[in-house]
Amino acid sequence: MDEIKEITQALTKFRNERDWEQFHNPKDLALAISIEAGELLEEFLWKKPEDASKENVKDELADVFAFAFLLADKYNFDVKKIVLDKIKKNGEKYPVDKAKGTATKYNKL
Amino acid sequence: MDEIKEITQALTKFRNERDWEQFHNPKDLALAISIEAGELLEEFLWKKPEDASKENVKDELADVFAFAFLLADKYNFDVKKIVLDKIKKNGEKYPVDKAKGTATKYNKL
Amino acid sequence: MDEIKEITQALTKFRNERDWEQFHNPKDLALAISIEAGELLEEFLWKKPEDASKENVKDELADVFAFAFLLADKYNFDVKKIVLDKIKKNGEKYPVDKAKGTATKYNKL
Amino acid sequence: MDEIKEITQALTKFRNERDWEQFHNPKDLALAISIEAGELLEEFLWKKPEDASKENVKDELADVFAFAFLLADKYNFDVKKIVLDKIKKNGEKYPVDKAKGTATKYNKL
Repeated sequence: MDEIKEITQALTKFRNERDWEQFHNPKDLALAISIEAGELLEEFLWKKPEDASKENVKDELADVFAFAFLLADKYNFDVKKIVLDKIKKNGEKYPVDKAKGTATKYNKL
Repeated sequence: MDEIKEITQALTKFRNERDWEQFHNPKDLALAISIEAGELLEEFLWKKPEDASKENVKDELADVFAFAFLLADKYNFDVKKIVLDKIKKNGEKYPVDKAKGTATKYNKL
Repeated sequence: MDEIKEITQALTKFRNERDWEQFHNPKDLALAISIEAGELLEEFLWKKPEDASKENVKDELADVFAFAFLLADKYNFDVKKIVLDKIKKNGEKYPVDKAKGTATKYNKL
Repeated sequence: MDEIKEITQALTKFRNERDWEQFHNPKDLALAISIEAGELLEEFLWKKPEDASKENVKDELADVFAFAFLLADKYNFDVKKIVLDKIKKNGEKYPVDKAKGTATKYNKL
C-alpha cells in the first residue's frame, strides 16, 4: 500500500475507535494543526536552532503531520499531488534567477 | 520510489536550486510551519467549517506539508514511522474505554 | 501612572528579577506570542464558542498580553498609539459602506 | 478615561459601525489572535531578530493587541488585573532562586 494511505488509515482507525469523527470538522482540524505547530515552536523557544531536543521535535512534528493528514483525508486531497502542485506554483512566484540566495518574499522580489 | 521520499526530493530540489538551505535551520522551519498553519486557519475565520474555500484550503495545507516535510528531512525523520509511533503513544494516553465519544484532554480523563 | 505603563513595569520587573532579558530578543518574543496564542486556541478546540472555560481563557489570554506588552516595550511602542493608528488604517481598507455586515477580506471587497 | 478602556471603545466602535459583532464570537476571536500572531512571526522568518522591519512589526503587533482587547472585552476581563494576576501565579511557578538566568520551563526546574 502507498505510505500516505497507510498513515491515513492508521489515523482514521484510531479516530474511529474513539468515535471522534464527530469532533473532526475541517475548522477544528485546522485549529488542531495550528495548536500543534505552536507546541512544535515551543521546542525552539529561547534557544538556538541546534539546541532543541530532537526527541521532543519528533513528537510535536508527528502531531502536526497527524492532523494535517486527517484534514487532507477530510477533503480527499492527494497529499503528493497537492504538494507537487504547490511547488510548481511557487516556481512561478519564485523564479530561480530572481530568488536565488535571497529570503525576500515573492511580492518584494 | 516511496511517495514521501519523492515529495521530499521535489522540495529539496526546489530549495537547492534557489540556494535557500542557508535559511532553512530547524527553528525557522518550525516558524514557517506555524505561519503557514495560521494562513490555513485564516481560511476558516468568521466562517462555518463547511464554508471555507476548498481550493484555498488545498493551497495552504500544501504549504504546511511542505515545511513539515522539510523539517522532517532536516532531522532525517521517517515520517511514516514518527506518525505511527505517535499513534501508539496516544493509544496509551487515550485508551478506547475512557476516550470514546469524548473530546476531553487526556490529563482530564 | 498609566495602566499600560504599570503593566509593563510589572512584567519587566518580573523578567529582570529572573535575569531573563538575555532570552527576550524580539524574534523569540514573537515566538512566545504565537505559542501562547496556540494555547489560548486550544481552550476552544473541538468546542462550541460558548463552551470554553472562562478561567482558562483568562489565563491564556493573560499570557498573550504579557508577551505582547514585552515586545511592545522592546521597541518602545506606545500600545495605545499603535492600536489607534491601526484602526485608522483599517478604516481605509474597510470603509463602512462596503464592509458593513460582511466578513469578506478587504482585498475581496 | 483609562487607556485600555479608551482603546477598547475605539475597537468596539469600529466593529459596531461595520456590524461585525455577529462574527466576533470568542472562538473566532481566538482564531484571529492566532492568525495575527502568525503574521507577526512572519516578519522574523529567515531573519536575525534585529533584522525585522520595525514598521511592519508595529502593524502586526497592533493587530494582535486589537483582537486580544476585543476578546478581553467579550468576557469583561480587566486586562490589567488578569496580567498582574498571571504574573503572581508565574512567580510561584518560577521562583527567583530556581529560575534566575535559565530559560528552563517550570515543569523541568
